[in-house]
Amino acid sequence: MATPATPLLKDELDIVIPTIRNLDFLEMWRPYFQPYHLIIVQDGDPTKVIKVPEGFDYELYNRNDINRILGPKASCISFKDSACRCFGYMVSKKKYIYTIDDDCFVAKDPCGKDINALEQHVKNLLSPSTPFFFNTLYDPYREGADFVRGYPFSLREGVPTAVSHGLWLNIPDYDAPTQLVKPTERNTRYVDAVLTIPKGTLFPMCGMNLAFNRDLIGPAMYFGLMGDGQPIGRYDDMWAGWCTKVICDHLGLGVKTGLPYIYHSKASNPFVNLKKEYKGIFWQEEIIPFFQAATLSKGCTSVQQCYIELSKQVKDKLGKVDPYFDKLADAMVTWIEAWDELNPSTAPVPKGAPK
Amino acid sequence: MATPATPLLKDELDIVIPTIRNLDFLEMWRPYFQPYHLIIVQDGDPTKVIKVPEGFDYELYNRNDINRILGPKASCISFKDSACRCFGYMVSKKKYIYTIDDDCFVAKDPCGKDINALEQHVKNLLSPSTPFFFNTLYDPYREGADFVRGYPFSLREGVPTAVSHGLWLNIPDYDAPTQLVKPTERNTRYVDAVLTIPKGTLFPMCGMNLAFNRDLIGPAMYFGLMGDGQPIGRYDDMWAGWCTKVICDHLGLGVKTGLPYIYHSKASNPFVNLKKEYKGIFWQEEIIPFFQAATLSKGCTSVQQCYIELSKQVKDKLGKVDPYFDKLADAMVTWIEAWDELNPSTAPVPKGAPK
Repeated sequence: MATPATPLLKDELDIVIPTIRNLDFLEMWRPYFQPYHLIIVQDGDPTKVIKVPEGFDYELYNRNDINRILGPKASCISFKDSACRCFGYMVSKKKYIYTIDDDCFVAKDPCGKDINALEQHVKNLLSPSTPFFFNTLYDPYREGADFVRGYPFSLREGVPTAVSHGLWLNIPDYDAPTQLVKPTERNTRYVDAVLTIPKGTLFPMCGMNLAFNRDLIGPAMYFGLMGDGQPIGRYDDMWAGWCTKVICDHLGLGVKTGLPYIYHSKASNPFVNLKKEYKGIFWQEEIIPFFQAATLSKGCTSVQQCYIELSKQVKDKLGKVDPYFDKLADAMVTWIEAWDELNPSTAPVPKGAPK
Repeated sequence: MATPATPLLKDELDIVIPTIRNLDFLEMWRPYFQPYHLIIVQDGDPTKVIKVPEGFDYELYNRNDINRILGPKASCISFKDSACRCFGYMVSKKKYIYTIDDDCFVAKDPCGKDINALEQHVKNLLSPSTPFFFNTLYDPYREGADFVRGYPFSLREGVPTAVSHGLWLNIPDYDAPTQLVKPTERNTRYVDAVLTIPKGTLFPMCGMNLAFNRDLIGPAMYFGLMGDGQPIGRYDDMWAGWCTKVICDHLGLGVKTGLPYIYHSKASNPFVNLKKEYKGIFWQEEIIPFFQAATLSKGCTSVQQCYIELSKQVKDKLGKVDPYFDKLADAMVTWIEAWDELNPSTAPVPKGAPK
């Protein structure tokens, strides 16, 4: 039986859910999510009514709301793609965000106990990260663990954690070619670990089960231009992950991956996925080296400054790969403008401006 | 009950054991180790007779043997410290080495089944590593796993694995200060994962349960000058790990950590350890940044060339920290000379020499 969650960070965390359907999946999450405020970003037809189970505290935005709130800047928010979820990050006023897909359910640990995914994310976000040196016993801040022999003492304080990337039991997050080749593969391995992704190392960030500190890294969590009218899909979270990791490395922030698991119930259609992904599959061969080589200037001390500088590099270096990246670079700038408009208190103060 | 091991790589792997006592611990390992050849490096008093259980195929070297075989070059092999084990790597003629401490026993997996550590190391060494991009589902080559969405296809072949670093249940590998602060902490967490340590990231390599491909990285596995007559101990494996990782990164080789676990039975005396470690604890604050910044020139294409270049940098940069590093840098050169003498066929051919 699920035990009610300690409402950790109840007033400091929003749950963001992109969806096109009734949110029946919330029933299973009730003991864990009900103490929190939900931000539902309705994708697709705005006239459709999304049913939310009784008793949840939520606000819901459909495409009409997004257009009304952002005006012309709404162009930076994707349509007919779960990338639209990042609008929820922008309108939140909380310090932390947890985002989850509506086909993700409560997973069980190896003892058969329900996993409170949110509680583990909160633990991950509230304890430091260790990006500068690898600890072979994984998260040194976890109960029963520590830094091993040979770990420099000066690095044991760690750095603030900006991102907690959770994993998935059952349906693994595979690309279309792997789905096609291994249609029956299921992830049944519960790896009882959380670890910091080292500085300088990129990773494929999945948006299915993801938490982050909005104050520390929010403006970098832009899920790009995907879906309707765009040549690409299913790279929204990847794009956000690459940008986020480069900026976290620059600002000295940590990114963790591992626990918690959710139960991913249903594989998406690999044929549809292949159509969305195929350009990404060859573009990423140039995108990854670009992000691996990307450096930000010392003057970039806020996430917004870092992101604008990165958008210029995207235009400059990836614009040659495809005109899409010109458009994406512009959208990155629009995103930051919209973010600062909706979050005036967190916008960086221009140099020389009165404080 | 332990099941007899498949004699994986039977004729290609030596097990190296440094010791000062009778090797009763081998009884527990019999089903797994008996198919292999053992190289026992006897530390301390060479007149003492070390008993090896019946039925094992082994050669044993004591200090007199080391002095006789290496002559004046024996100065590079530590005395009264388990760092002496690296002599075993040098005299082996096999492709793979597994080294284990004599206080390590067979661990049990979460189902209560005995873990064949050697079998897992062989799996790790025979499958590629992925140092250029992080895979969130850990080792992608493992059964039931793969590369996740967003992993560049051009990197999915991986690179050859040079090192497999195994972990420890029960007594964790803590430094003296942590041992003193947490005398009762035991590692009971079985993390069912193997992962590649990313390129550019250093880690604390422990020599307790370690396997490597001697052909690929052997000459870098020098355990330094420790113990008798030296100002430091318990940094032998750390030193080897730092050098090895820098050279693996340069040569495009992989280093894995995680499974297999062994059961580490007994914590060493923290007071004795503190005496051995205390210089290392402050020196490592300068050693780590040195290795993090170390780069090797393109011309270094063999492990020996890399190691000699690294020894020059040690002398140049760390010699200022303490005269000990001057001596260590010289010993690094002596080690390579001795290695090439005992392994003439693997010594790099000097440029311009007839082939």
